[in-house]
Amino acid sequence: MAEQVGRAALPPGSTIGILGGGQLGRMLALAAARLGFRCHVFCPDPRSPAFDVSAAHTIAAYDEFEALDCFAAAVDVATWEFENVDLAAVERLATTIPVRPGGAGLATAQDRLAEKRFLTGAGIAVAPFASVGSEADFATAGAVTGFPAILKARRFGYDGKGQRRVGTSADLQVAFIELGRAPAILERVVAFEREISVVAVRGLAGEVAAYDAAENVHEDHILRTSTVPAAVAQQTAAAAALVSSRIAAALGHVGVLAVEFFVVPGSGAEALLVNEIAPRVHNSGHWTEDACAVSQFENHVRAVAGWPLGPTGRHHDAEMTNMIGEDVARWASLAADPGARLHLYGKASVRPGRKMGHVNRLFARHDRGH
Amino acid sequence: MAEQVGRAALPPGSTIGILGGGQLGRMLALAAARLGFRCHVFCPDPRSPAFDVSAAHTIAAYDEFEALDCFAAAVDVATWEFENVDLAAVERLATTIPVRPGGAGLATAQDRLAEKRFLTGAGIAVAPFASVGSEADFATAGAVTGFPAILKARRFGYDGKGQRRVGTSADLQVAFIELGRAPAILERVVAFEREISVVAVRGLAGEVAAYDAAENVHEDHILRTSTVPAAVAQQTAAAAALVSSRIAAALGHVGVLAVEFFVVPGSGAEALLVNEIAPRVHNSGHWTEDACAVSQFENHVRAVAGWPLGPTGRHHDAEMTNMIGEDVARWASLAADPGARLHLYGKASVRPGRKMGHVNRLFARHDRGH
Repeated sequence: MAEQVGRAALPPGSTIGILGGGQLGRMLALAAARLGFRCHVFCPDPRSPAFDVSAAHTIAAYDEFEALDCFAAAVDVATWEFENVDLAAVERLATTIPVRPGGAGLATAQDRLAEKRFLTGAGIAVAPFASVGSEADFATAGAVTGFPAILKARRFGYDGKGQRRVGTSADLQVAFIELGRAPAILERVVAFEREISVVAVRGLAGEVAAYDAAENVHEDHILRTSTVPAAVAQQTAAAAALVSSRIAAALGHVGVLAVEFFVVPGSGAEALLVNEIAPRVHNSGHWTEDACAVSQFENHVRAVAGWPLGPTGRHHDAEMTNMIGEDVARWASLAADPGARLHLYGKASVRPGRKMGHVNRLFARHDRGH
Repeated sequence: MAEQVGRAALPPGSTIGILGGGQLGRMLALAAARLGFRCHVFCPDPRSPAFDVSAAHTIAAYDEFEALDCFAAAVDVATWEFENVDLAAVERLATTIPVRPGGAGLATAQDRLAEKRFLTGAGIAVAPFASVGSEADFATAGAVTGFPAILKARRFGYDGKGQRRVGTSADLQVAFIELGRAPAILERVVAFEREISVVAVRGLAGEVAAYDAAENVHEDHILRTSTVPAAVAQQTAAAAALVSSRIAAALGHVGVLAVEFFVVPGSGAEALLVNEIAPRVHNSGHWTEDACAVSQFENHVRAVAGWPLGPTGRHHDAEMTNMIGEDVARWASLAADPGARLHLYGKASVRPGRKMGHVNRLFARHDRGH
């Protein structure tokens, strides 16, 4: 996992390849441009938002190796904006160019079971979980997790897709069938006080930094708001940063990585359970664009380019609100609101549940827990 | 000049056309993208830095009307990033689409004599000046300005190009010949204490706002640093903002406009003389990218799109340093400097005097003059 360490930093004018052309790729491309890099975006969707802000793009499927080879020949380094990118595509690219982060962390993050096993192996607390590969596993799994629990397909889930809540052991069969009998993981439902996340970043030389923990509110399984600072004890926020940094280091990650936590009542103090890792720039870090000198996007680009990391401190408290689906129709009133820092993704069509943009609001910094 | 007032704001997804593909166009395109706009850049140089961050571009000369007509058909509004754009091109575009700012202010800013006459007509103080159209004007002009003075070609000057310092009346002939006997203006050399500038912005509905005055240091006629706040009395900074706002209003300007001032000793207080107007986003406003919630680039885009202006307040003091020519070779040490916010323009070739990027440094805000 240390293949690239010690290589020279990529000079400005180099081309960064990005697999995936959604809003995360778009914001990465904008950050890369500020540092003098060119971007080349690879995405099958001809209307990818990232194409509009990039020097070049390739419209092809992730399993078209000929297109991937041309892409590799045109860029100096590649990264990706979503963790469901084909592992085979990443491995193909890695035969000729550096791909950062590498495929090892990606493989872990693509499989909810592998991820949870990795975390417990690293001594990091998670909710009780068990593998569900077939009906034969129901009894054992239910005994491990108890109920209510959540059955999640091991692969290709996002924004609550591929998940079913299971109230009793009798519901397991229905849930398993609804998920298409895909290999799954059963997890105990955690009675959490709040959800927080930390965006950490690890540089090519192994240095790690973390942004302040954000408190997240989801609606219909989609992130609605992220607020910084989170309403947790200072030691809880510090512990979350430490765990996130440990995860980044243990994965040999290069770039930004987000870790979602449940905050649960503990014996005397709050305790943390890791819910999920996203080995990429993350929606819960969008507040860094306006409240920090260096955003998560710039820091990801810095890491991928082998540059030193930038500072992760915040100069303001912040609240990020996603604009989902028809929320985008409110653009005019938000444009007129002097407190709203508006970010729109340039998506041509509006669909329910589709992330169309976000709004950051800044507040004078008030630290908690002192 | 009020043609556009009252029109609806352009919705996100609209296309903004930009005449000129240099670093100012590039930073405008980046700001436009954050608000969900597409950009189409028109520039004769096939290696224009703005192309790399725009959805579309046209490579053509500014006097190719067929190309201009195609460009007009592809965009919803047009603007420009430099004041030496062909007035005929702007007028051609304006027959079919809104061009903001319009041609009236452009014509004034393209002619140093017209600009100075406009300013004095508006009751705004400038250094003594006189027209020099031929040798016959030497005696009268010299009597008006006194010596030393500066002879400036009326048109197409920038970064000190097209200017000659004239120590005595005997030097006028040489300077006039060196400038190719082009129509010129003679201006008295001002014994200024410092140079400051104000970036103002006027919206489509006529509202005006101004960023805090920056203090500028030039080397070899090229801006080296801009520092905010300027080391002037609060009332001087306020007067500069007021004058800049009056100029924007008097020109019927839409978008950002920068006004450069000489600060000179006055009777009891500092006095201001306007040196030059730049009716566009300006190098001395690059500090707003990191020290303000809304940068000069976003506010220009807002004005051009008919959106309400964003706030112009600063949350940090700032110092902007240009990276000129070989300065860009220092990118690696600046990348490693946690206090340096690096902005590089992606220019492929380095030339002496060429602006390659800039660095912003932020400091806790300390207001002067209270």
